[in-house]
Amino acid sequence: MYTIGVDIGGTSIKAGVVDEKGNITLSLQIPTKNSPNACIESIINLIKELIEKSNLTTNQIKGIGFGFPGMVNSKTGVVDFLPNINGWENIDFSSKIENAFGVKVKITNDANAHTLAEQKYGSAKGANNVVMLTLGTGVGGGVIIDGKLYEGEGSKGTELGHTTLILGGNKCGCGRKGCLEAYVSTTALINQAKEQMLENKDSALWHLCNNNLATLNGKIFFTELNNGDKTAEKVFDKYIIYLSEGLLNFCNIFRPEIIVLGGGISAQGKVLTDKITKYCKDNYYGLTGAPEVKIVTATLSNDAGIIGASALI
Amino acid sequence: MYTIGVDIGGTSIKAGVVDEKGNITLSLQIPTKNSPNACIESIINLIKELIEKSNLTTNQIKGIGFGFPGMVNSKTGVVDFLPNINGWENIDFSSKIENAFGVKVKITNDANAHTLAEQKYGSAKGANNVVMLTLGTGVGGGVIIDGKLYEGEGSKGTELGHTTLILGGNKCGCGRKGCLEAYVSTTALINQAKEQMLENKDSALWHLCNNNLATLNGKIFFTELNNGDKTAEKVFDKYIIYLSEGLLNFCNIFRPEIIVLGGGISAQGKVLTDKITKYCKDNYYGLTGAPEVKIVTATLSNDAGIIGASALI
Repeated sequence: MYTIGVDIGGTSIKAGVVDEKGNITLSLQIPTKNSPNACIESIINLIKELIEKSNLTTNQIKGIGFGFPGMVNSKTGVVDFLPNINGWENIDFSSKIENAFGVKVKITNDANAHTLAEQKYGSAKGANNVVMLTLGTGVGGGVIIDGKLYEGEGSKGTELGHTTLILGGNKCGCGRKGCLEAYVSTTALINQAKEQMLENKDSALWHLCNNNLATLNGKIFFTELNNGDKTAEKVFDKYIIYLSEGLLNFCNIFRPEIIVLGGGISAQGKVLTDKITKYCKDNYYGLTGAPEVKIVTATLSNDAGIIGASALI
Repeated sequence: MYTIGVDIGGTSIKAGVVDEKGNITLSLQIPTKNSPNACIESIINLIKELIEKSNLTTNQIKGIGFGFPGMVNSKTGVVDFLPNINGWENIDFSSKIENAFGVKVKITNDANAHTLAEQKYGSAKGANNVVMLTLGTGVGGGVIIDGKLYEGEGSKGTELGHTTLILGGNKCGCGRKGCLEAYVSTTALINQAKEQMLENKDSALWHLCNNNLATLNGKIFFTELNNGDKTAEKVFDKYIIYLSEGLLNFCNIFRPEIIVLGGGISAQGKVLTDKITKYCKDNYYGLTGAPEVKIVTATLSNDAGIIGASALI
């Protein structure tokens, strides 16, 4: 038997057939259409094509899982709202796919799908209690408890980026001030670097930016960090404190076996995790003998969406 | 069949026989002895007395549960550390009780026991996903997920008081700065009131304190708050923000069905929950249609320890 995983993104939709070991046997990609109806039609066609090209019948498909970039209700199968795709508000999604294929359909958000993928086949394989934080434009979260994805009422929990780091601090996209997301997202890191560049006109960051602050991005920042630029180092040291304090909260709240960091910034690997692990070790709640939380970066980057969505089944 | 629940406190130990409906049929209390060995001996005698006076035999006892004021490992049955009772460090507890009575023994910390009691028989009865915060000298936490107590690795999770409200803020007992506990414990509230009293010499709080700042306590504070003292109101309004922001974090992280507030401050009931509920409603992560989290105060105050400990069985 096979499952199908579909990773819905703002610009493209990727779907793959996944075998029982978590391997993608075939995957296809299409651009994201600009209305929910057109989008759903294209998704149905994409899945049909995937099944045909794999020489399978729907009888061999155990179910289809979807990861969405926004808010969904996994119980009702309704997509509540996708901030970056036009028109997706309160769309009764799962039933349409179920009607088209006659198989089980499950939906979740992309951070949850990625968390599930890491726990089933990636860096958190075999762990029963897992916390994942995705450090991208925003900060997403996923939590696995007793081997099962935890989503909260109406699938509205595990919004780990929207927890206070500094009450009344930087404005967050969610409307509150001082959320973790406002300090540890890529956007936040770039803003922190820009502020420091303005105070340090001799930073090598200016050179790679062609003296244009607006062109600073994560790649430039980490290039100069690894080159030893003092301004980049100063920014990163502060960033490590923000991120570690956020992770310490999740250690004290969940005391999971493992925390997985995903998203663009996680590509830094041990540059990131070595410092954070030390900070957390020094500051956990409890005695020194309390179990340590392993902190690692995600290993399934590009395929995590498909694999995680398929793992919902 | 019956269970026995034992509530270990810094000054007294309470034990009760609990029937299958959660009613305490008999309870006894002794002072807490000043060494672990003497204490364990007195606990064993207390339980024997309880069984005898109830005209029961150990065959009719399904098991014995214990709630401790500190860190325990519920899997190994070891009490790691009790900050307020002499000598309790790394004590292999459960096995001693098991040997004495030949029945199942379970241990947890007091906040977890109280959470379980509220979910089985109190204000959160019937809810599957519950978060509890106990607002006392410190701030404890308990979490129920899918109807089961969640404790984390080595039972070192759900330390909800030790999560950042203001990074680098007030010093917390745990060693970090800016933890929720440092803003919403009784101790913190009293300190906030003292600060405001110094700036408001005409506050009625001075009168009930006999002009001695050191005598301010929670009772005086809430008496004058309810009398309409402006200084007390100002302090309480700020306190509501601290507490609500902390609870919002737990809403966004867990999106539980219900949050239960326990501990001394929770005696204020709706004075507390009405304001907090409104604040949270206005600031949840997500759309206005996202499910609301019910916020209530605990209903099982004195007996919660015994009932919760017995509910471990």
